[in-house]
Amino acid sequence: MNIFKELVHRQMTEAVSTLQRYCRQPSIAAQHVGIEETVQIVQDMITTVGGQTKVLDDCGGNPVIYAEFSAGINGNPNKTLLFYNHYDVQPPEPLNEWTKPPFGAEIHDGKLYARGAADNKGDLTVRLQAISILQENGGLPCNVKFLIEGEEEIGSPSLPRYLEKYADLFQADACIWEFGHKNADEHVEMVAGIKGMCYLQLWCHGADIDLHSSNGAIVDNAAWRLVQALATLKDGDNRILVDGFYDDVAALSPELIQMAEERPFNRKQFSEQVGLLRPLICGDENPNFHLWYAPTMTICGLESGYTGEGSKTVLPRRAQAKLDCRLVPNQDPDDITAKVRKHLDTHGFTDVEVSQINGEHAYRSDINHPFVGMVVETARQAYETEVVLSPNSAGTGPMYPFGEYLGLDFPIVSTGCGWWNSRAHAPDESIRIADFEQAMLHMVLLMREFGESA
Amino acid sequence: MNIFKELVHRQMTEAVSTLQRYCRQPSIAAQHVGIEETVQIVQDMITTVGGQTKVLDDCGGNPVIYAEFSAGINGNPNKTLLFYNHYDVQPPEPLNEWTKPPFGAEIHDGKLYARGAADNKGDLTVRLQAISILQENGGLPCNVKFLIEGEEEIGSPSLPRYLEKYADLFQADACIWEFGHKNADEHVEMVAGIKGMCYLQLWCHGADIDLHSSNGAIVDNAAWRLVQALATLKDGDNRILVDGFYDDVAALSPELIQMAEERPFNRKQFSEQVGLLRPLICGDENPNFHLWYAPTMTICGLESGYTGEGSKTVLPRRAQAKLDCRLVPNQDPDDITAKVRKHLDTHGFTDVEVSQINGEHAYRSDINHPFVGMVVETARQAYETEVVLSPNSAGTGPMYPFGEYLGLDFPIVSTGCGWWNSRAHAPDESIRIADFEQAMLHMVLLMREFGESA
Repeated sequence: MNIFKELVHRQMTEAVSTLQRYCRQPSIAAQHVGIEETVQIVQDMITTVGGQTKVLDDCGGNPVIYAEFSAGINGNPNKTLLFYNHYDVQPPEPLNEWTKPPFGAEIHDGKLYARGAADNKGDLTVRLQAISILQENGGLPCNVKFLIEGEEEIGSPSLPRYLEKYADLFQADACIWEFGHKNADEHVEMVAGIKGMCYLQLWCHGADIDLHSSNGAIVDNAAWRLVQALATLKDGDNRILVDGFYDDVAALSPELIQMAEERPFNRKQFSEQVGLLRPLICGDENPNFHLWYAPTMTICGLESGYTGEGSKTVLPRRAQAKLDCRLVPNQDPDDITAKVRKHLDTHGFTDVEVSQINGEHAYRSDINHPFVGMVVETARQAYETEVVLSPNSAGTGPMYPFGEYLGLDFPIVSTGCGWWNSRAHAPDESIRIADFEQAMLHMVLLMREFGESA
Repeated sequence: MNIFKELVHRQMTEAVSTLQRYCRQPSIAAQHVGIEETVQIVQDMITTVGGQTKVLDDCGGNPVIYAEFSAGINGNPNKTLLFYNHYDVQPPEPLNEWTKPPFGAEIHDGKLYARGAADNKGDLTVRLQAISILQENGGLPCNVKFLIEGEEEIGSPSLPRYLEKYADLFQADACIWEFGHKNADEHVEMVAGIKGMCYLQLWCHGADIDLHSSNGAIVDNAAWRLVQALATLKDGDNRILVDGFYDDVAALSPELIQMAEERPFNRKQFSEQVGLLRPLICGDENPNFHLWYAPTMTICGLESGYTGEGSKTVLPRRAQAKLDCRLVPNQDPDDITAKVRKHLDTHGFTDVEVSQINGEHAYRSDINHPFVGMVVETARQAYETEVVLSPNSAGTGPMYPFGEYLGLDFPIVSTGCGWWNSRAHAPDESIRIADFEQAMLHMVLLMREFGESA
């Protein structure tokens, strides 16, 4: 292993410069920014390290990039590892809260700051650079494929169509998913599944124009209606009140329950890190239990009327809310949307519009699959620290269609180069250069191990 | 009267051009825009028509402009009429909903479009031009004073201090207030009082940074807390639930009740004009009763997290709401603020911050005062249409300190050049040139009548 540690270290200058180029190109799916340019950069990154690439764009949405690397002369041509990544990023707003330019990819104190550095441009770079190292040092130990999509941050609406149409092209024996990080104890965390999502937009319209707020004496206020409607969806104890919301939640095996109960969670550290002003909402229960297994309903955005400095006496003509429901296995996003619609109707809010902006099913790999153990074991070697596997992430990704089209027992593990303060989706997103290097070594060791496995 | 009708008509070219110059200068108190420049323009407008002016700026806030015109040789030196106006305007946002430039003062189809045209730059221009006409045609029939402030749209926080300090300077026998308009029946509406206001800002903070929304499983969401807190303030029938909110509401005389019950209100016309999507919230009761006498609590603004296009999966670190409570006589804005604070505490929302952005008491003149009748009668002559007086406006203004410092039985009537679709505080604010001309004639006739009164 030491030789590869050294080889990875020598690769760092090129790797960091490649990552900087990639991060400096905005690629914001929600705002239709920079998609075409980014596809070109990713293709260049693949061909530079000897891969074949194909841009798939015949199923709508932003293009999906397919890449292929064949096992070397000494490698195993019967084993194929699939990497899943995405080239799109979250919007950088609020811009005034960044202390570094969001698309500057500047390096300060051993960290590279950029929107997308952690989620998920660092990891694609790690994987391609690991392939490059292996190719130049004995050849690839297995076949490698990539699926790199451009709509992950808006819920991967087109991905299932590409997976269905190109299921043969993407066939593989196992998959490494996009993300992973070190926690505040500097232990490597990885997951073998994800939560689903039902992202809703609610609109309430009251009038054609904004009115003088003195009309509040007689005019029904769109903002008040939206507030009243939202307040019926969740109680003060954060229990979701939508009728039937919890009906399809899959039962948990004793093994899964035990994993959650036994996994330490440092409440104090978590709260201090993000500056929480109130206690966690899970009471005395292990927060992991909620992060892994509890469906959620989060207000991601609220907007109505005047929100600038000082006062404006306006009765707003409309109000909107964005709601993110994280789902667990067996919950169906379309079904949840229908239940929210029905709930609002039942409570007299037929005028409040609901639309699903995106929906994804949850996915959980079999945590006893040998591939899962292999990813964990090689990570221990590469990172030389404790490795913690969770049955699924609190976050979301389009794993479900991979299972649906590539095999329902398809093992997927997510691991990557983030750290505990990477601030994915928030201002000052960053990765640490040292983690980036270790993640690269992990991928080198994993591909070697995978090629040698039965 | 015909001679003055003709004289007013001849004055129109100069009057409109003066108004355009005035409207083209933004003067947004809430955003600290253009105050100094506007003060200079207003002084020019006064001295151009022969007035003496003094800028009062020793009690904080934006300057108050005092102006004085003495009765002519044939006028009555023992009668003084005070005009109250303000040179500040509401913010023009949302800018993309204007079909004309908000500070262009363009004239289309007989209307002049500008932020502030109706509220309240048109009326100051009307009054100064009326003075000019009288001075050039027999002299001023009475003394005239002006108080022109620059913080009306942010709740006149400094005005009471100026009125207290300069009470002698502003002494007068009666006051014409800033605004008035023709309703959809083309009848002239005026008021002899105003509602008070308690404008509150509510903040809820959850963390130091925005979080990935997957943390919604364990982190208390500032936006949800704000929604839950707001929902406790008002019920689904628009009854304000803050304990003691209605306690101090002054009892209504039978005459006031009768006025409200007998005054027609065209619900269909009102709803169609602004494109209301739901019925009025006053049920079968006369809407005037609510507009004049019911205290309100209106959400003027809501903001949290991501409100742009598409989805962003963020758990916002904070949320804010702006609440406008319109008050009736005897309600005290500071007392209302304290009651809202106490209500939130009682309901477990001690963490939701409340601050009063501005507060004003309501004011109602004695509607049987002779001056009130004189304003109505001269309006009938000038406008040649029906004139409708209401005991008070649904809107707010700083009348209360006028009563407090100039005499508690001080008669104040508000009348002006707006029309039923002036859209004060909304995009495409406008006045009609024909109304502007009639309003000028009204002021000419009123000053003549006032000078001759006992």
